[in-house]
Amino acid sequence: MTALKKPLIAVNLKTYPEVSGARAVALAKVCESVSNETGVSIAVAPPMTDLAVVVQSVDIPVLSQHIDAVQQGSTTGHVPLGVVSACGGAGTLLNHSERRMRIADIASLVVDCRKAGLATIVCTNDIAVTRACAALEPDFVAIEPPELIGGDVSVTTANPAIVRDSVDAARGVSPGVGVLCGAGVKNGVDVAKASELGTDGVLLASGVVKAGDPRKALLDLASGFNE
Amino acid sequence: MTALKKPLIAVNLKTYPEVSGARAVALAKVCESVSNETGVSIAVAPPMTDLAVVVQSVDIPVLSQHIDAVQQGSTTGHVPLGVVSACGGAGTLLNHSERRMRIADIASLVVDCRKAGLATIVCTNDIAVTRACAALEPDFVAIEPPELIGGDVSVTTANPAIVRDSVDAARGVSPGVGVLCGAGVKNGVDVAKASELGTDGVLLASGVVKAGDPRKALLDLASGFNE
Amino acid sequence: MTALKKPLIAVNLKTYPEVSGARAVALAKVCESVSNETGVSIAVAPPMTDLAVVVQSVDIPVLSQHIDAVQQGSTTGHVPLGVVSACGGAGTLLNHSERRMRIADIASLVVDCRKAGLATIVCTNDIAVTRACAALEPDFVAIEPPELIGGDVSVTTANPAIVRDSVDAARGVSPGVGVLCGAGVKNGVDVAKASELGTDGVLLASGVVKAGDPRKALLDLASGFNE
Amino acid sequence: MTALKKPLIAVNLKTYPEVSGARAVALAKVCESVSNETGVSIAVAPPMTDLAVVVQSVDIPVLSQHIDAVQQGSTTGHVPLGVVSACGGAGTLLNHSERRMRIADIASLVVDCRKAGLATIVCTNDIAVTRACAALEPDFVAIEPPELIGGDVSVTTANPAIVRDSVDAARGVSPGVGVLCGAGVKNGVDVAKASELGTDGVLLASGVVKAGDPRKALLDLASGFNE
Repeated sequence: MTALKKPLIAVNLKTYPEVSGARAVALAKVCESVSNETGVSIAVAPPMTDLAVVVQSVDIPVLSQHIDAVQQGSTTGHVPLGVVSACGGAGTLLNHSERRMRIADIASLVVDCRKAGLATIVCTNDIAVTRACAALEPDFVAIEPPELIGGDVSVTTANPAIVRDSVDAARGVSPGVGVLCGAGVKNGVDVAKASELGTDGVLLASGVVKAGDPRKALLDLASGFNE
Repeated sequence: MTALKKPLIAVNLKTYPEVSGARAVALAKVCESVSNETGVSIAVAPPMTDLAVVVQSVDIPVLSQHIDAVQQGSTTGHVPLGVVSACGGAGTLLNHSERRMRIADIASLVVDCRKAGLATIVCTNDIAVTRACAALEPDFVAIEPPELIGGDVSVTTANPAIVRDSVDAARGVSPGVGVLCGAGVKNGVDVAKASELGTDGVLLASGVVKAGDPRKALLDLASGFNE
Repeated sequence: MTALKKPLIAVNLKTYPEVSGARAVALAKVCESVSNETGVSIAVAPPMTDLAVVVQSVDIPVLSQHIDAVQQGSTTGHVPLGVVSACGGAGTLLNHSERRMRIADIASLVVDCRKAGLATIVCTNDIAVTRACAALEPDFVAIEPPELIGGDVSVTTANPAIVRDSVDAARGVSPGVGVLCGAGVKNGVDVAKASELGTDGVLLASGVVKAGDPRKALLDLASGFNE
Repeated sequence: MTALKKPLIAVNLKTYPEVSGARAVALAKVCESVSNETGVSIAVAPPMTDLAVVVQSVDIPVLSQHIDAVQQGSTTGHVPLGVVSACGGAGTLLNHSERRMRIADIASLVVDCRKAGLATIVCTNDIAVTRACAALEPDFVAIEPPELIGGDVSVTTANPAIVRDSVDAARGVSPGVGVLCGAGVKNGVDVAKASELGTDGVLLASGVVKAGDPRKALLDLASGFNE
């Protein structure tokens, strides 16, 4: 297992056709290569079915996209914490916008992941939910201010107060929590701006997966931490 | 609609056979009578199917046991906010232990209920979840410390620090939030103790519904606020 | 409780603002009046929160829009069978397209409703699901052929084979099952055509609820059974 | 991809600690070895996170324990059909008792899996659900008669009519459907009896996973097909 160092670029491969099967491993290797080259910590979250094979293929932190709040054992078709841990996962996303979770489940998983040595990144959608999830004291919250989702809006072109307010909300409740910017980051300039506003890195998906040249996209993003 | 005054006794009728059909109205009338007699605010949450008929039968606040985070309209078999509001509900329980909810849904419903003039009581199960839900700024959190659930344990016989810590956790994040004690309260002595520990009232179910004499049980509970 | 006689017009009020609160009772009374006047069986499914009050206000069959596959008792915020039965419901919709259910839950509720004297109307979306749900032997399946949903398509203008094939699929597996046409019925001419194609009636919502004059719409629909 | 030949032994690894991580591959190799040695078709369903790595390690059919009825793409934390297909899965369990599904989702996945060349095994819990799921025409239904679940009851000691009735129910609706016995099979004698009663094989979990010697257990089970 590899710890999640700050600043962090977390790449969510979702279930995009572009990264299914062998291509999940291929993209994870690009992430590993860029991380080694730039010294920037990069973690990758492959499709659930590819978690073990990606862990075995690269030496960067591999995240689960989700964990089910069920016990290991007689839980066919679910992904309990023990399974992620046993196959070498470094941590997990929780409460992604495409997989919203119940508050009691997030809370118990944050506690249980910590005991098991797994890092937690809890996704949030507005200031109130950011405060609530930060109160659970995960390793990171990944904020997705609605004003920054989709289109061409980025942290550099939009009102920077949006990101700063989210960071303040999270740290006001839980001073030590890491904060990732989960929307509005397209390139190294955005990463630099997000860092300046107090975040510890970024969580992104299509910006890397659907880039014509994912390696180039990652190198550009990583460059933002050095500006 | 009637506001939820503090201190408050909130009685959850669940779906107990003892209160199904006409008996839901009968028990709501007992609550109304005791409230009028003692001056203590009592709210009642009947089975979902009986919400409208209970609202029409009594002049105390009637709560929904749950609201679904769906829009009013083409949502057969769900209970959206607009339906509760239209039939005269005063507010709602959210995230009851028997109906856990996703954090994003609790957050949006707290906001939307406030706009619609409905009070919110968000149930929580431990200190971390209490902090998280308090951060959403509902009208009340109803704390159910696991140490106080079931059996004969009550706030007066158990370590009082449990309740005080929960109250502090909620108010530390959201100073104005009401706090109901949702477990460990059996009688007026417990109510008095819970009040002394900083709560604004109680949320209970079987203690009233399954009492041999619900009127007597309610009178006893209400007496705790005057001690 | 009133049995569901064939042919049947089942009116689903959904959670439309047009029928919230007191207006649910008002529309149920229109249904009752038209049923008495025309001799056609009309059942109404009000918002969940209004079930008891509508039952008390009219003398036609009142249906629940859904039943949760949970036990009566400690099931806050759910609607178990016992609650629907206790407040006088005549039956229930199951598996509505806006509230899809698990097959094991539909199966057990069909059995339990029969024991409790409640009629079941299971909604289906294509030939395969119609066969599957008919195999559970509910009182009715309500077929919604995708080709007939939305727009101006009706059973009279579309290829009639669609409805006939659905009827055959249902009866091929369960000869005695009632079949309601749940899409493509706008007026009495459509009702007559649907009857001719082998259905036992219709399940509809907006065609009545959002009609400028619901009474007139119902009278027109009912006239289709006499043609 | 490897087709599911009859008779079939399908081994569900669930999320048992005994088969987590590298041990999932190890047990899959035992299955492969016994299959090669005996000529009996054996398929294995590893934990979701290990699907790709198991596919790459053995040359027997590997099944997903579940597929989510969501589209491939922006569906973080889910397992859509396309992901199972891309990593080389041969088919999937659907509606396992620990992961019950909505009827409309089972229906659409049976159709979509067939188009994608994936085999489907739909689990059922009683005669009615067996008929319903057989009506969807999956490749197999796996019947779990409640009378045979748990304890020491087996098809050879219990009333054989139970299994025969389930087989008749499935084939009565869908003559070509394969039928697996999903409960009450402990050893080769049970397998022989289940075959005699008309099944095409077995689906089992703990009987292999928790056996002191899984290889020996599989050899014994496989021997039942030759008696």
